[in-house]
Amino acid sequence: MFATLKFAALLLAVVVCWATQDYDYNDAEIDEEPTLGDSPYGSLWPLPQKVQISTVVFKLSGASFHIFDAKASSSGASCRLLQNAYRRYDEYIFTSSRKQGQNKSKKALASDMSELQVWITSADSECDSYPSVTSDESCEFTGMVFVFFHFSHLADTLIQSLETFSQLVYKDEYGAKSINRTDIHDFPRFAHRGLLLDTSRHFLPIKVILANLEAMAWNKFNVFHWHIVDDPSFPYLSRTFPQLSQHGAYHPYTHVYTPSDVKMIIEFARLRGIRVVPEFDTPGHTQSWGKGQKDLLTPCYSGASPSGSFGPVNPMLNTTYDFMSMFFKEVNTVFPDAYVHLGGDEVDFSCWKSNPDIQKFMEQQGFGTDYSKLESFYIQRLLDIVTTTNKGYMIWQEVFDNGVKLKSDTVVHVWMGNKVEEELQKVTEAGFTTILSAPWYLDYISYGQDWQKFYRAEPLSFKGTDAQKKLVIGGEACLWGEYVDATNLTPRLWPRASAVGERLWSDRDVRDLNDAYSRLAKHRCRMVQ
Amino acid sequence: MFATLKFAALLLAVVVCWATQDYDYNDAEIDEEPTLGDSPYGSLWPLPQKVQISTVVFKLSGASFHIFDAKASSSGASCRLLQNAYRRYDEYIFTSSRKQGQNKSKKALASDMSELQVWITSADSECDSYPSVTSDESCEFTGMVFVFFHFSHLADTLIQSLETFSQLVYKDEYGAKSINRTDIHDFPRFAHRGLLLDTSRHFLPIKVILANLEAMAWNKFNVFHWHIVDDPSFPYLSRTFPQLSQHGAYHPYTHVYTPSDVKMIIEFARLRGIRVVPEFDTPGHTQSWGKGQKDLLTPCYSGASPSGSFGPVNPMLNTTYDFMSMFFKEVNTVFPDAYVHLGGDEVDFSCWKSNPDIQKFMEQQGFGTDYSKLESFYIQRLLDIVTTTNKGYMIWQEVFDNGVKLKSDTVVHVWMGNKVEEELQKVTEAGFTTILSAPWYLDYISYGQDWQKFYRAEPLSFKGTDAQKKLVIGGEACLWGEYVDATNLTPRLWPRASAVGERLWSDRDVRDLNDAYSRLAKHRCRMVQ
Repeated sequence: MFATLKFAALLLAVVVCWATQDYDYNDAEIDEEPTLGDSPYGSLWPLPQKVQISTVVFKLSGASFHIFDAKASSSGASCRLLQNAYRRYDEYIFTSSRKQGQNKSKKALASDMSELQVWITSADSECDSYPSVTSDESCEFTGMVFVFFHFSHLADTLIQSLETFSQLVYKDEYGAKSINRTDIHDFPRFAHRGLLLDTSRHFLPIKVILANLEAMAWNKFNVFHWHIVDDPSFPYLSRTFPQLSQHGAYHPYTHVYTPSDVKMIIEFARLRGIRVVPEFDTPGHTQSWGKGQKDLLTPCYSGASPSGSFGPVNPMLNTTYDFMSMFFKEVNTVFPDAYVHLGGDEVDFSCWKSNPDIQKFMEQQGFGTDYSKLESFYIQRLLDIVTTTNKGYMIWQEVFDNGVKLKSDTVVHVWMGNKVEEELQKVTEAGFTTILSAPWYLDYISYGQDWQKFYRAEPLSFKGTDAQKKLVIGGEACLWGEYVDATNLTPRLWPRASAVGERLWSDRDVRDLNDAYSRLAKHRCRMVQ
Repeated sequence: MFATLKFAALLLAVVVCWATQDYDYNDAEIDEEPTLGDSPYGSLWPLPQKVQISTVVFKLSGASFHIFDAKASSSGASCRLLQNAYRRYDEYIFTSSRKQGQNKSKKALASDMSELQVWITSADSECDSYPSVTSDESCEFTGMVFVFFHFSHLADTLIQSLETFSQLVYKDEYGAKSINRTDIHDFPRFAHRGLLLDTSRHFLPIKVILANLEAMAWNKFNVFHWHIVDDPSFPYLSRTFPQLSQHGAYHPYTHVYTPSDVKMIIEFARLRGIRVVPEFDTPGHTQSWGKGQKDLLTPCYSGASPSGSFGPVNPMLNTTYDFMSMFFKEVNTVFPDAYVHLGGDEVDFSCWKSNPDIQKFMEQQGFGTDYSKLESFYIQRLLDIVTTTNKGYMIWQEVFDNGVKLKSDTVVHVWMGNKVEEELQKVTEAGFTTILSAPWYLDYISYGQDWQKFYRAEPLSFKGTDAQKKLVIGGEACLWGEYVDATNLTPRLWPRASAVGERLWSDRDVRDLNDAYSRLAKHRCRMVQ
């Protein structure tokens, strides 16, 4: 009986593709579902820029097939990133067939594809560096009995190409691994393809984060926006200020990310071509910071005396800026990415307004009663501090909206649902690069196939010059953590986030819902497997 | 590093209770969340009818505590249902502490609670029978150093009492298992507390079904409504008509429920006090039946010739009724419950209308153009067939609405979202027992804490006499399978279904959202663990 059970579980991945027939309820609105047909592009997701699949079929034998560096390639066996990727994709492609005890000694037949040669022509293979927003991600490959990838630039592009290659492999009617001769020229439409996970509202165990980094790579996402701390908890274990997580985390030992945890996550991401951009959001969303750091937050007043509760970061104390200097100096060493996200969203002024010292400070500074000026005062100083660490910064749109002076390489993160196009227009008119999240708040769930809504969103539909459009470098899907933890995160996120992945990678004209549905259904099966 | 990982995963269950702070978005409506305080009733869910928790605390030592039959109990070691329940709850209570290699030889201290004696006073312990809608589920227990359960009637009530007992056990600040002296008198408000799972739209592996039966027991649900077949697939492997699943299942071997699978599920449910009521829905929702059974479905016409597609069951052929007789004879032997659900919902008349033979038949029968009469004609004959098998039947509300003549013990299942109270009034006025699902379609998801919506629903808010109210024997939470499979079923269902569990078990006046939220949060942690 239990053998049956196991068998059923293994085959689960197969069935999820089939059962999608609709059912009409009398009292519910259901979007019309796309037709589930066969796409000429098989299960490719996201769709490459140019792809030509011929009818010539090769077989891939688990016994003879291997991925290796072409002789002329500028990167070789010493490149851990490459070797790790070869092994991973070899495993993806042959997981089940290798189980039958095959070994690699078998000779390839004439119609076998026996090799995948990787040919990197860049002088600088950058095997040990981190991916960056300027990474050239374009690649070409030509399918022959021997396959070559040609890369003009960086090694981390390879990962995306291997992903594409593995998506081309299918089982024929006899279960034999097969691949059609295929020519691909590919590059992403947007350089910044991010996913935000929130580890403050609910702590996410490391294995959940790693699993989702894996899924990100399958969907060619390349930025993990780690919203690591917020009001509810402070799980980041700081070497400089260990009391922050000691008092601010849900649990000081079990629900924190230690320096070695963080390092592991960054390395796991790097091996998949993914940047890790941490967000330390201030001056709002900082309740948990106040538990371990005395005098950091503004004391709120009830009438003439402190009420015992606290508001945003206290912007009038020099100690605040001393703290931030030391804290972001550490952040700079821990997180190698060129950018850090500084938040700056949703600052509630009521506590500041209640505090007589703040009122006096406002007067001294000549801010009148305009508390957004006080907010800008704080942010401005924070930005100056972070600038000295040589990091670029990303900020939520309010910081721009409030007229804070920003460095020219600042990335403005547009998230508010109202007047999205107007905001994109303004930000790019001011010459700032920007990324978009407004249409992609994946924590908002609704009945039915809401991936279509995410898929339809078009980041460049606003009015603006070509130069302005070029400043939109991408977008991020956000999964805020109010109602998400390890028990439901993965099925809630995928394949819904895949819709965003294709929108950010593929050509603007790739919008056929029926074709997308067919490819996405197969892509989902592969992910579940 | 990996030791850390494991530790984090183990502790996951603890954190999910804590992280529920709200976050305001500018552009979204969020229901106000209840306050997360401490309930005087700890983590009891659903809340018993009468409960008094004293401040006297006993410790439960994993080494000395055991559950056993009181000497005077009418059931003993030969009762598999009891022994199985004792073992299960012993494991629930002591899972973690037993791991430290304790054995049971240790003597109990004075303040220890060392025994839980189960005293069944019913003459008929019914250890080997199946739970039924008439099971007396009331129980009392008094907490002392020796605990007694008193049962006036059936053994399966015991399972619910053990669940309550295990919910009273908590860890004190030192981690020691503790229980307060507690007096409880308990019984369910409604006899029928069901959960519908749909295994046709997506096949559910057996382990998913078993896991959810377990969760049902933790929430005192007592009916598993198994919507086993429908349009998309026919996973029920019939001994009499094996071709039904051979051609109608997603896969004839891996995506079917064999006779032994069904038997295992029924037994697993029985040991948890849960009835299994299968639904074989006809004459609509039967596309998958037609694949294995020739001439069962009505051929649709396009103009003067058959279109190649099929509609509902063909009601004019005698072969249809021969088939149904044999099929439900088998169903009667496979499923021991006194009831079977015969469906009867959402019959689409367009195919019948297109078919000239059906038109002729309508004329002969004097139905005019009223196709609901044809539907009733079919259902009437089906009900007569099932009546000969000595099974009672449940049907969806349309069958009643269409005026089909029903046996007096028929259960009418109210599911339509419009005019719910009016429908309950009509059904009970006609003297039929009824169960309610309309407010509890759990497949409809929305952002935020929608458990409150399910919790607030009140089955007896319609106008009617006391006698009418008594005819409402309960309700069912429904999780239809369009967008649900093994990857997301459990986190989507729980703890949302728990809200329905308490509504159906506890007193009508148990409606305090803050108190419920506090207990539910803890109950959820326990379930995750």
